[in-house]
Amino acid sequence: MEENFSFAVPEGDDRERRVCGTCGFIDYQNPRIVAGAVVCKDDQILLCKRAIEPRRGFWTLPAGYMELGETVEQAAMREAREEACADIEIDRVLAVYSVPRIGQVQVMFRANLMSDIRPGPESLETKLVAWKDIPWSQLAFPTVVWALTHFAETRGQSDFAPFANPPGTETLTT
Amino acid sequence: MEENFSFAVPEGDDRERRVCGTCGFIDYQNPRIVAGAVVCKDDQILLCKRAIEPRRGFWTLPAGYMELGETVEQAAMREAREEACADIEIDRVLAVYSVPRIGQVQVMFRANLMSDIRPGPESLETKLVAWKDIPWSQLAFPTVVWALTHFAETRGQSDFAPFANPPGTETLTT
Ligand SMILES: [Zn+2]
Ligand SMILES: [Zn+2]
Repeated sequence: MEENFSFAVPEGDDRERRVCGTCGFIDYQNPRIVAGAVVCKDDQILLCKRAIEPRRGFWTLPAGYMELGETVEQAAMREAREEACADIEIDRVLAVYSVPRIGQVQVMFRANLMSDIRPGPESLETKLVAWKDIPWSQLAFPTVVWALTHFAETRGQSDFAPFANPPGTETLTT
Repeated sequence: MEENFSFAVPEGDDRERRVCGTCGFIDYQNPRIVAGAVVCKDDQILLCKRAIEPRRGFWTLPAGYMELGETVEQAAMREAREEACADIEIDRVLAVYSVPRIGQVQVMFRANLMSDIRPGPESLETKLVAWKDIPWSQLAFPTVVWALTHFAETRGQSDFAPFANPPGTETLTT
């Protein structure tokens, strides 16, 4: 037997859900949380070149889907370890971005690098770059551009409100 | 046919997932996002008495599961509308709490009340209370206590780092 999903409004619900015609399972799809970090050491920022699709070969920040059983801070630390073999120390929340088009909320932290780095299985390459050397045209996702830009606005500050999606970027996210 | 889930490690994955023996569907369960707000008007705070389980009859802040297709700010505004018929204006992120035991991340905003209030279908009662009148022993969840306490620390401030789980509360969340 194979899964066989179509959309229907379950009894007692107020919106359409994915329901399997084979077994009756209701797939309550919820937005997923991406946890990541702008990781800094001596004014340099950790970037990872993606070894996997989407956007293989483009540069990104360590970030990925949060799993059950962890806190959002633990998820960001795990992703840094998996993608760059990096131990990081979480400083604070930098930004909370929403990308409704793909059902994501991205919680991006500011963090400090506490170890060496090397590529994990999901990265082709890892490096620490100075601000002037950020490869802007080869960043993987708009939220990476936002997080780096917002990070730069907070240098030397510890008290600031977390950033949200920049105004006027709705066409990128919805 | 009925759904028939058990745990197995799917090919190419590194952890157990819920897999349906009837149709083969893999249920990638992820943490879910709760969006809510401490809503303020003239130094009073909006509370809702829950009409539904869990914790029916206890007081809570307007908050609930984020749905696909909305931003986290829109989710918080929708919950205030559903639970208290309230129009709110988002001020900023107050806190990001993780509750791994039940797979939740709670993004709590600070917000201003822009309308009258009355109970929606999920509330028995809604009210605006002064700080001294908060019914601490009848609050529905630990995160409600945390959000109210953290909110009080930020009165008059606009620039501060979002709060996380208070230290020493791991037994409540894991
Ligand atoms: Zn099925
Ligand atoms: Zn099934």
